[in-house]
Amino acid sequence: MKRNAFYAQSGGVTAVINATACGVIETARRRRDRIGKVLAGRNGILGALHEDLIDTSAEPKSAIAALKHTPGGAFGSARYKLKGLEQNRAEYERLIEVFRAHDIGYFFYNGGNDSMDTAHKVSQLAKSMKLPITCIGIPKTVDNDLPITDNCPGFGSVAKYIAVSTREAALDVASMARTSTRVFILEVMGRHAGWIAAAAGLAGEGPLEAPHIILFPEVPFDEETFLARVRQTVDRCEYCVIVVSEGVRYPDGRFLAEAGTRDAFGHAQLGGVASSIAALVKDRLNLKYHYAIADYLQRSARHIASKVDVEQAYAVGKAAVELALAGKNAVMPTIVRKSDSPYRWEIGHAPLARVANKEKMLPKSYITRDGFGITAACRRYLAPLIHGEDYPPYKNGLPQYVRLRNEPVPRRLAEQFVLK
Amino acid sequence: MKRNAFYAQSGGVTAVINATACGVIETARRRRDRIGKVLAGRNGILGALHEDLIDTSAEPKSAIAALKHTPGGAFGSARYKLKGLEQNRAEYERLIEVFRAHDIGYFFYNGGNDSMDTAHKVSQLAKSMKLPITCIGIPKTVDNDLPITDNCPGFGSVAKYIAVSTREAALDVASMARTSTRVFILEVMGRHAGWIAAAAGLAGEGPLEAPHIILFPEVPFDEETFLARVRQTVDRCEYCVIVVSEGVRYPDGRFLAEAGTRDAFGHAQLGGVASSIAALVKDRLNLKYHYAIADYLQRSARHIASKVDVEQAYAVGKAAVELALAGKNAVMPTIVRKSDSPYRWEIGHAPLARVANKEKMLPKSYITRDGFGITAACRRYLAPLIHGEDYPPYKNGLPQYVRLRNEPVPRRLAEQFVLK
Repeated sequence: MKRNAFYAQSGGVTAVINATACGVIETARRRRDRIGKVLAGRNGILGALHEDLIDTSAEPKSAIAALKHTPGGAFGSARYKLKGLEQNRAEYERLIEVFRAHDIGYFFYNGGNDSMDTAHKVSQLAKSMKLPITCIGIPKTVDNDLPITDNCPGFGSVAKYIAVSTREAALDVASMARTSTRVFILEVMGRHAGWIAAAAGLAGEGPLEAPHIILFPEVPFDEETFLARVRQTVDRCEYCVIVVSEGVRYPDGRFLAEAGTRDAFGHAQLGGVASSIAALVKDRLNLKYHYAIADYLQRSARHIASKVDVEQAYAVGKAAVELALAGKNAVMPTIVRKSDSPYRWEIGHAPLARVANKEKMLPKSYITRDGFGITAACRRYLAPLIHGEDYPPYKNGLPQYVRLRNEPVPRRLAEQFVLK
Repeated sequence: MKRNAFYAQSGGVTAVINATACGVIETARRRRDRIGKVLAGRNGILGALHEDLIDTSAEPKSAIAALKHTPGGAFGSARYKLKGLEQNRAEYERLIEVFRAHDIGYFFYNGGNDSMDTAHKVSQLAKSMKLPITCIGIPKTVDNDLPITDNCPGFGSVAKYIAVSTREAALDVASMARTSTRVFILEVMGRHAGWIAAAAGLAGEGPLEAPHIILFPEVPFDEETFLARVRQTVDRCEYCVIVVSEGVRYPDGRFLAEAGTRDAFGHAQLGGVASSIAALVKDRLNLKYHYAIADYLQRSARHIASKVDVEQAYAVGKAAVELALAGKNAVMPTIVRKSDSPYRWEIGHAPLARVANKEKMLPKSYITRDGFGITAACRRYLAPLIHGEDYPPYKNGLPQYVRLRNEPVPRRLAEQFVLK
């Protein structure tokens, strides 16, 4: 029996989430015996709720192939978490209604913890309604915080971007330290888990090489210990490179980034842990500083994506379709590490029930005892994830990223759905 | 007659200043009949003043070749401007004394406006003292603000980094705009001239493509016009990408970055034009924003260097030696554009007297009438400078940058020199 598939992207996009879309669509196209069209949600799950679906079969083969090297979310993603089944059953019923109207037998949801939870709930509801809808979650998050899977597609490329950028900026600072900047601060993503900050540690080896200090959300920020370490590093190396996670907190739990900063007009200034650290360095140590905030650049930098990451992102998309066709339901493909060096991995799978709403933090054993660096175990884990380059094609000096047609599927339902 | 050469890097380093060093040293090594050793200043001109010289002849051929793909300043650079001859003649005399002690007949000074002035003054002093020292300035600046030369080595690679990053981040923002960030701000370098900000304009074509707004130091910042344009862009495109030069000013001349921002502790917060713009967008338009500050990442990003830039950086280094050996003195090699498309260029030269202490601003004709974008003429000028990729070698996922031995040359002078 041939059914359509629905694919949606969820949450913050990455440099390789479209490679996963490519894996889903190319694999589905090879199985036209079982899968009709792949319909995508415009702006993620909102597209399903609003019956705003995209017909991916209208895209030429070359455009789908180009997704593999295009960052961002090609169909639009959304920060929208469905509530619990009890709190907003109407949303789940609407999803089911839209899936029915478009003969959708496969639901592929590409996201992080919340999305795995949604996919799981849809599978439960479908089951209780005796509807044959196969639900597969597909892992994606730069935060690398999904459990069971060894790592998450999207993370390897951010990790590579941060490690490369730290190594490069450190060379700049080192050249100038005698007469210019002594302390350089790079702010990276990671609200809860310090995986991205940890990746900066790959840039150097040993305590004399940059980054000299990494500030993790897992380690409460102690001002005096930190300042002493900066001072010591500048005395020893002439300069100090600090990589700070946006989620770093004071011992009382407050984010450094929420230090209540206000400008001259009394406007609240948000989201600047780097500037808080810089002000501290300036005020207490009187050292010249500079800071960079990588922000979206880090998670969209397809130009320096990790080849391993691109391959894994594609592989989980492909595996999602294969698992669905093999009769698996309510599962997520996982990446299983077989060996560190040489790095070998394969695709496994885990029940969504075991993945949903759980966060994998950086283990204690990955952070050095002083709280400012990564251990050899952490390095062993991280190193293979940034292996290999996978450059996009360039024209006139700029990467050629595809823009899809994103043709709408004609609506079949009379009712409009209004979000609560 | 065989004499030694002295080479020094000056001012902010770039992704390709070492490619220039490579051009100087490789060319000098091929002319052992005329040039003895190339000695480099440790930390730029300070190395000459302190007689802290590096013997580049101790570096193997492979290390010198690797300079071509290594960012930062391999010998150390310095932000140190020699004062006028009248104000601090002692410094110039010290330079001459060190040059004499080490039989230096060629002075190659690799920097921006100030450095061209220094090289010029040294040449004048040597002439007045009847000393045979050939002084050649070699252009380098990410700011692209040297006169006469069509463009400056270092700029093309920053331009490429900013154009690529803007294109990538815009895809990210576009995917998420419906439920997340509406306004994304990227802060770029350029205290006086908007060349780097202008380069972001290469990322998109037409007013509907990102960047939607560029803020130049050349255009006084009008809050109301700016806010109206942001509002209009978000209404039309769902999101708005803004690239802002650090040097943007209010009509009264104050930098936006110096808006007197203070944190909760009363610490001054410096260097954040992006956060000023973000606060404005939040307070006046109530739109969700994110901002990135590229800072040193932009000028050290050798991983995404422009091939044209690398070639030109090497070429000016090579030409500097050739000009010196051809008997030219007090000149700077320039890049002469022969045609835009196909892009053709050659090396020329200009007297230091005509280059020193002059800044080339972005011409009015390169900025659109509304002040928020670049014109077709600007695009024609900028486009070829980012052409081509020139990837460094990678190992284990990280670029392999060379670290030189930087062996000191034994001192020959008894006196220590103390900077005033």
